[in-house]
Amino acid sequence: MANAIIQIECKDQQGIVSSVTEFIYSNKGNIIDLDQYTDHDNNHFFMRVEWSLENFTIQKDKIAEYFETLLGKRFSLRFNLYFSDHKPRMALFVTKLSHCLYDLLGRWQSGELEVEIPLVISNHPYLKDVVERFGLPFVHLPITPENKKDQEKKQIKILKEHDVDFVVLARYMQIVSPLFIQHFEHKIINIHHSSLPAFAGAKPYHAAFERGVKIIGATAHYVTEELDAGPIIEQDVVRATHRHYVSDLLKMGQDVEKLVLAKAVKLHVQRKVMVVGNKTIVFH
Amino acid sequence: MANAIIQIECKDQQGIVSSVTEFIYSNKGNIIDLDQYTDHDNNHFFMRVEWSLENFTIQKDKIAEYFETLLGKRFSLRFNLYFSDHKPRMALFVTKLSHCLYDLLGRWQSGELEVEIPLVISNHPYLKDVVERFGLPFVHLPITPENKKDQEKKQIKILKEHDVDFVVLARYMQIVSPLFIQHFEHKIINIHHSSLPAFAGAKPYHAAFERGVKIIGATAHYVTEELDAGPIIEQDVVRATHRHYVSDLLKMGQDVEKLVLAKAVKLHVQRKVMVVGNKTIVFH
Amino acid sequence: MANAIIQIECKDQQGIVSSVTEFIYSNKGNIIDLDQYTDHDNNHFFMRVEWSLENFTIQKDKIAEYFETLLGKRFSLRFNLYFSDHKPRMALFVTKLSHCLYDLLGRWQSGELEVEIPLVISNHPYLKDVVERFGLPFVHLPITPENKKDQEKKQIKILKEHDVDFVVLARYMQIVSPLFIQHFEHKIINIHHSSLPAFAGAKPYHAAFERGVKIIGATAHYVTEELDAGPIIEQDVVRATHRHYVSDLLKMGQDVEKLVLAKAVKLHVQRKVMVVGNKTIVFH
Amino acid sequence: MANAIIQIECKDQQGIVSSVTEFIYSNKGNIIDLDQYTDHDNNHFFMRVEWSLENFTIQKDKIAEYFETLLGKRFSLRFNLYFSDHKPRMALFVTKLSHCLYDLLGRWQSGELEVEIPLVISNHPYLKDVVERFGLPFVHLPITPENKKDQEKKQIKILKEHDVDFVVLARYMQIVSPLFIQHFEHKIINIHHSSLPAFAGAKPYHAAFERGVKIIGATAHYVTEELDAGPIIEQDVVRATHRHYVSDLLKMGQDVEKLVLAKAVKLHVQRKVMVVGNKTIVFH
Repeated sequence: MANAIIQIECKDQQGIVSSVTEFIYSNKGNIIDLDQYTDHDNNHFFMRVEWSLENFTIQKDKIAEYFETLLGKRFSLRFNLYFSDHKPRMALFVTKLSHCLYDLLGRWQSGELEVEIPLVISNHPYLKDVVERFGLPFVHLPITPENKKDQEKKQIKILKEHDVDFVVLARYMQIVSPLFIQHFEHKIINIHHSSLPAFAGAKPYHAAFERGVKIIGATAHYVTEELDAGPIIEQDVVRATHRHYVSDLLKMGQDVEKLVLAKAVKLHVQRKVMVVGNKTIVFH
Repeated sequence: MANAIIQIECKDQQGIVSSVTEFIYSNKGNIIDLDQYTDHDNNHFFMRVEWSLENFTIQKDKIAEYFETLLGKRFSLRFNLYFSDHKPRMALFVTKLSHCLYDLLGRWQSGELEVEIPLVISNHPYLKDVVERFGLPFVHLPITPENKKDQEKKQIKILKEHDVDFVVLARYMQIVSPLFIQHFEHKIINIHHSSLPAFAGAKPYHAAFERGVKIIGATAHYVTEELDAGPIIEQDVVRATHRHYVSDLLKMGQDVEKLVLAKAVKLHVQRKVMVVGNKTIVFH
Repeated sequence: MANAIIQIECKDQQGIVSSVTEFIYSNKGNIIDLDQYTDHDNNHFFMRVEWSLENFTIQKDKIAEYFETLLGKRFSLRFNLYFSDHKPRMALFVTKLSHCLYDLLGRWQSGELEVEIPLVISNHPYLKDVVERFGLPFVHLPITPENKKDQEKKQIKILKEHDVDFVVLARYMQIVSPLFIQHFEHKIINIHHSSLPAFAGAKPYHAAFERGVKIIGATAHYVTEELDAGPIIEQDVVRATHRHYVSDLLKMGQDVEKLVLAKAVKLHVQRKVMVVGNKTIVFH
Repeated sequence: MANAIIQIECKDQQGIVSSVTEFIYSNKGNIIDLDQYTDHDNNHFFMRVEWSLENFTIQKDKIAEYFETLLGKRFSLRFNLYFSDHKPRMALFVTKLSHCLYDLLGRWQSGELEVEIPLVISNHPYLKDVVERFGLPFVHLPITPENKKDQEKKQIKILKEHDVDFVVLARYMQIVSPLFIQHFEHKIINIHHSSLPAFAGAKPYHAAFERGVKIIGATAHYVTEELDAGPIIEQDVVRATHRHYVSDLLKMGQDVEKLVLAKAVKLHVQRKVMVVGNKTIVFH
């Protein structure tokens, strides 16, 4: 039996937690998990509740309507409702590097990552074999400065045709345009190979090497119009020493990149992330 | 204005979260933080709620009674109620090593650790100067196999006289007896210098060196009758290599020990730890 | 042009470093990397030197002989000589879980892991597809208590026929026998899913869950006759909380397992590990 | 008996390691530790050797001369020679925050940190008690925009009078001037409360909070004229979540700051750090 998951956001006010839990309880829902957060600086309230629909007395397709009527208006709250039996549809964008691709596909195939993957898109042909070995369609859309706009329109069209819910840039070496971003606001996850805000932009490992840092990292974030400046979902680091050349940092970094990206994707899929301004709230 | 903090434990059942939050809300309390956890294996429910007493309409000294009457009986729940304006009274037990002592006293003096420290007890005189430099009473109770029982009785008497709420064994090199433990059940925090359950007992760094591990650690736990087997509050590790002799591990370990102990003490003081069987629940 | 790599071990004595480096220098070898370690407790000396053969005046196939004659006898030293242009031949043993397999094969295919993989052996058929997708032979040798001895003999025979240099147990769920181990002493790398010596043996994540640890880990070690007690090559950990069920620990642990195993395999392949008694020396 | 420690730097060329070790060996020195590093990008060689003077046949005060004559000229190498029985003289600069001060003084008093501390200088009177409790002179030199130049001259004068070898800015909340830096080139260690190059400059925790990072850090570096841009000695990080306000980050950060600073100071005292351009080499 599916669970319902609801993410709620509103002005902080008394009685929200008690009203929401009362709504679930009085209709015979059993709360599986509840996490809430109050941003006291901005007087804002956030909540994620997951409950079992087993004995829930409101029909699945009526829950949103009832919730809006009974609670949405009363507290002026915004909410998103999800069901655990709907697998989100994820498109992967790749270029040349295979480590994040292998990692995500391996997790998908072993059942750890609960998504549908309708297709993988790439601006280069290199990873065709890898993708097809997993039985997935590989769409090659080469990009030049001249055709970029048109190719992005094609990408958007294909993604819409395949009902794609969110996009993962798994070391996709192209900057996506504002147009593309508008179609998938807070639904494009990128992995940047540095511990942002350090070393935003191109060639972060080269920059890290030049600066002589003793730690390198990776950052998974939602893509926004400003490059490498979107809401951070997850970050991690690994120690470096003077012995590591750029080529070593590249290899070491790949281990962090793939784990950080996989964690961010799983959090997104489990509906544990809320975007607030340019930050994320990550529920337990 | 103080906050109230309540820790709740009971059989999992529908309506608890909504009833507890309704109790706070309808009496004009504002929830500052709420975290709950359901142990689905054992069908058990745990919760910690912190709310502001600013406009709360039930008198501070009546809250426990009302809560018991209105909710305790209904849900067969056990609870502990605390107030943020009561600083817990902490006694430190030490022997020779000063790193945990300095670390805790430094945090206390800078205001980071919100406790009263009525006294420090030691079985050796070595750290008298350190303790007195911080303006605290140092009680020297030497322990031999012959006098151990009597000295422990003295310790208990002194602790009771000083209204001590909890005891921290800050690298205290004596095993405390069951009698002592009974007087302070789940109120004695020990720091063990290994990542338990590895290397329980004496000389863990020597054992770690012999085994050739690449990681050493520290564990803060509540003391129970079985040595180094009580509920774990916090653990952390640090990397080791073949170059590290026992003496190096000792020094590196001290850095982890003092941080792990300080974290555990702060969690305990903030009433964020609940003991369940031989495990802990650590609320956010 | 290849590099030569030599690992040296002997009683600590004056003049070794200077004699070895003089041997390389006077024959026009250029030292790329040198790391040495003296175990002062046991008065034992260890060294790894890597030098370019570009202008080296001793023929590749004569180096061992000259080194033995000129230095081996003088210092009563034992050494192993390797060449960077020989890719070690690695056999993988697997059962059901795919995460370590995918990770190692992905690194191999991207060129990060410089080995030949003549075959993958498994006691179950589950991972046949994964292996064959990478174009590698999959050998299925089912094991029962009755046929175990015979199947291990077959394994050994196949490994010898394929000139296998070392074996990686990538979550292979069988205990290998002393006979097998004798054929590959310090050449079988296992990944154990706990931070050894904690939770040796079966079902470590269940045991970790029962104990309520706040950290779980993984350990890569050379297999010896005593179960999970061989020389540790690499370890790492990840934080756990009371919210993690055994099934969560299993998933989180897989991320550490695959990274720890990959690191150990790479260190082994780069000839950076020496076994001393039941410990390892890991050169930089 | 003391050890000699030598740090060497020169153009990479054949025969250096063998010549240096031969120099030590033939004069009956026993090598305790040797680490070398070749920067292949810039064709530059670095080495640190530590050897026992027990039977060394060259007088302590003649070693530098002999080394320069026999090796320095031949290889055009620069070197620094130290003796393990000379405790470096360290001055601490502090302002208001006590955590790094307590940590360093605790390590000094327990014998872990082998330095002399002739005095502590502060621009504020707050930490006078802490310092004097440890029996150390506290010099209060208040700084205003008007008197800054004069006060720095006084600082330099006092440091010179006390034969101070190196200065540690233990959360000293003043920017030191180029004049001061010239007097102690690569001899001033600062702790910056971010993982540089992220959040250089003032209020890094506020900036980290604004950016919504999931990791905060600390960086110990040698002070150079450009603010927070000097050679990094050591860095470390700690995880943050959306629940952490600036005040939480401040406290969590203090734990990393004090450990990172202590590690950097110990590496400096053990003569394990060499500065090359704007980077450090940290020997094992």
